[in-house]
Amino acid sequence: MSTEACQLSCYHIFVMDYSLRQKRLAMELRRGHAEALLVTHLPNIFYLCGFTGSAGVLLFQAGGRTPRITFFTDGRYTQQAKAEVRGARVVIAKSAVMAEACDAVVKNRIRKLSFESDHLPYIFYQQIRHQLRSHGRAGAGIKLRPLPGVIEQLRVLKDPVEIAQLRAAVKLAADLFPTALSAIRPGVSEASVAGELELQARKAGAEGMSFDTIVAAGLRSALPHGRASAQPIPDSGFIILDYGVILAGYCSDMTRTVHMGAVSDAHRRMYEAVKVAQLAAIESVRPGVETGEVDRAGRDKLKKAGFDSYFTHSTGHGVGIEVHELPRLAKGQNQKLQPGMVITIEPGIYIANEGGVRIEDMVLITESGHEVLTPTTKDLITL
Amino acid sequence: MSTEACQLSCYHIFVMDYSLRQKRLAMELRRGHAEALLVTHLPNIFYLCGFTGSAGVLLFQAGGRTPRITFFTDGRYTQQAKAEVRGARVVIAKSAVMAEACDAVVKNRIRKLSFESDHLPYIFYQQIRHQLRSHGRAGAGIKLRPLPGVIEQLRVLKDPVEIAQLRAAVKLAADLFPTALSAIRPGVSEASVAGELELQARKAGAEGMSFDTIVAAGLRSALPHGRASAQPIPDSGFIILDYGVILAGYCSDMTRTVHMGAVSDAHRRMYEAVKVAQLAAIESVRPGVETGEVDRAGRDKLKKAGFDSYFTHSTGHGVGIEVHELPRLAKGQNQKLQPGMVITIEPGIYIANEGGVRIEDMVLITESGHEVLTPTTKDLITL
Repeated sequence: MSTEACQLSCYHIFVMDYSLRQKRLAMELRRGHAEALLVTHLPNIFYLCGFTGSAGVLLFQAGGRTPRITFFTDGRYTQQAKAEVRGARVVIAKSAVMAEACDAVVKNRIRKLSFESDHLPYIFYQQIRHQLRSHGRAGAGIKLRPLPGVIEQLRVLKDPVEIAQLRAAVKLAADLFPTALSAIRPGVSEASVAGELELQARKAGAEGMSFDTIVAAGLRSALPHGRASAQPIPDSGFIILDYGVILAGYCSDMTRTVHMGAVSDAHRRMYEAVKVAQLAAIESVRPGVETGEVDRAGRDKLKKAGFDSYFTHSTGHGVGIEVHELPRLAKGQNQKLQPGMVITIEPGIYIANEGGVRIEDMVLITESGHEVLTPTTKDLITL
Repeated sequence: MSTEACQLSCYHIFVMDYSLRQKRLAMELRRGHAEALLVTHLPNIFYLCGFTGSAGVLLFQAGGRTPRITFFTDGRYTQQAKAEVRGARVVIAKSAVMAEACDAVVKNRIRKLSFESDHLPYIFYQQIRHQLRSHGRAGAGIKLRPLPGVIEQLRVLKDPVEIAQLRAAVKLAADLFPTALSAIRPGVSEASVAGELELQARKAGAEGMSFDTIVAAGLRSALPHGRASAQPIPDSGFIILDYGVILAGYCSDMTRTVHMGAVSDAHRRMYEAVKVAQLAAIESVRPGVETGEVDRAGRDKLKKAGFDSYFTHSTGHGVGIEVHELPRLAKGQNQKLQPGMVITIEPGIYIANEGGVRIEDMVLITESGHEVLTPTTKDLITL
């Protein structure tokens, strides 16, 4: 379908249930004997209370029955925090946000404060310690405990509303694929193609792109992360298009590789090898399978075709509020797939001075196996 | 001038002198008795050696005369690192990048390893300690030392080539302003306006935008950080346009506020108050002046006009490889301005249920005072 024909209303915005997430985190913290968690990673704050701004700290106390949640932000976000935040008391800090959050830790008589050690820069750890100690004996006794990944582990399993929102983001991006193709002409810059795609994404209701759009044409297709550059599209060779949108805070991620001009036998073999590998990896996806096995399923096919040494990255990753989430689908990873996970499957091969191919879908793990969310064809398109 | 008329070649890409930066950092480290610094913040890595990818670690040994610099990245960046990195040995890590960097610390007999504590997440501090200790006595004796902001302090003073590159980024963004205006029509979404602007930025050679484009129209103009939304442009009220581009790795940042329909006396007073405050703040900019004084110069004018309580953020910030750099221009800050700094001056007022105004220029501190880099008019434009 054409993007032009697609009205904003195609892409539904869903209302999330924050209270359930808050209850699940409280349970998780109580189970781990963590009295309180200082949440500083913005995507985790968004997940827990819906705030979309770029500065704030959430003090999450697991409590006895119901959690006690306070969100601290600064004066720039007074209106926005009021409008967005659910299930947390909002405090507009008069001084530094982190300092006020620490003061509340002392005031609320928290004895052990967990923090997101996988995100918090070391210097903030020092500042928190310093701020707590500035309260004398009341603060000096408070224990700081590194607690990485606890909210990320909750986020791995998407609830039905999140899955619906991700479906909408995937559809929006896929609907833009014909637009991207029509923007590709020899001599036009990769950046122009990316720009056309991004404009249509905006018009269709996306808040933005989920990462720097990759348009890597000709020899640049051999760069696995070839962000769109000023280089003109050549009249022959592969073009990798790897992009995603953010819709209502949820990300999509897809890759297709197309070809300019006549396709040599060598290029057709490259493309087919990646396609076969991608389908094999998808075929292996079902509950209980280890992520490393999915990686191997695709890698084995590339080995058979003689291309495995050119597959220099991992097979995929979870997608949700962030474009790169857990689980990781890579060699040796043993996290087991579960229904409700949403992942990418994206093998590729990259041959210097020749070109590259990558094909990527988003895949939902279901009770019975999997569902490929990305609807776009994987037949080799030539332009 | 019209953007359409401006060819790519308008916006020059300059070649940076990395060796000078590397020498300056080595001197700085030797002065602080820091033997080696593990650089993990990507903008700092780009500053020191030119790498633009999204994964890597730089081990910087100050050395006796010449620094010894090793850049570790993964297989995805083999080609890119070879093409981009200057003045450092490139190592493509076979296992985890951080682990290989730590192994090199032990192998190179470093006794005290400084790290960027303002960026490094606490968990990596733990991992580094763990990895070093895995080498037994050789690693266990290595001291880890938090060393925040040392490269950021070098980056505060832009060299002539950086200033030229920033000028080009400012010009590119300013040239797009007429495009943005022509995209504004009642009923069109804020996001469409942002999308048109971003497409033209791409076509003119920008790698991307330096932050999420702000198009905040009507009542949303009262949000200091109102990222472009799906809301249609209303037929009356203020529209804040705050955007910047990245050109060859350097950022620009500008804000103009325009008005839809007839301007009430109240709105005209708001606009004039911000304009007077912005000009007063700029007027105060010269070497030796404290950043807090610049903030006060603008704030005093808003106070006289009765609007100071609506100015809820700081006056500005440095701009360079990152859109928010040192110095901070805020209440109570005492860093002294020096020639070679590039800052923003951006007072604003935000009245809930009414609207907001912000005007922002980029300003270079010169030997004799200052130079406003942003050429765009500050007369109130009505559409």
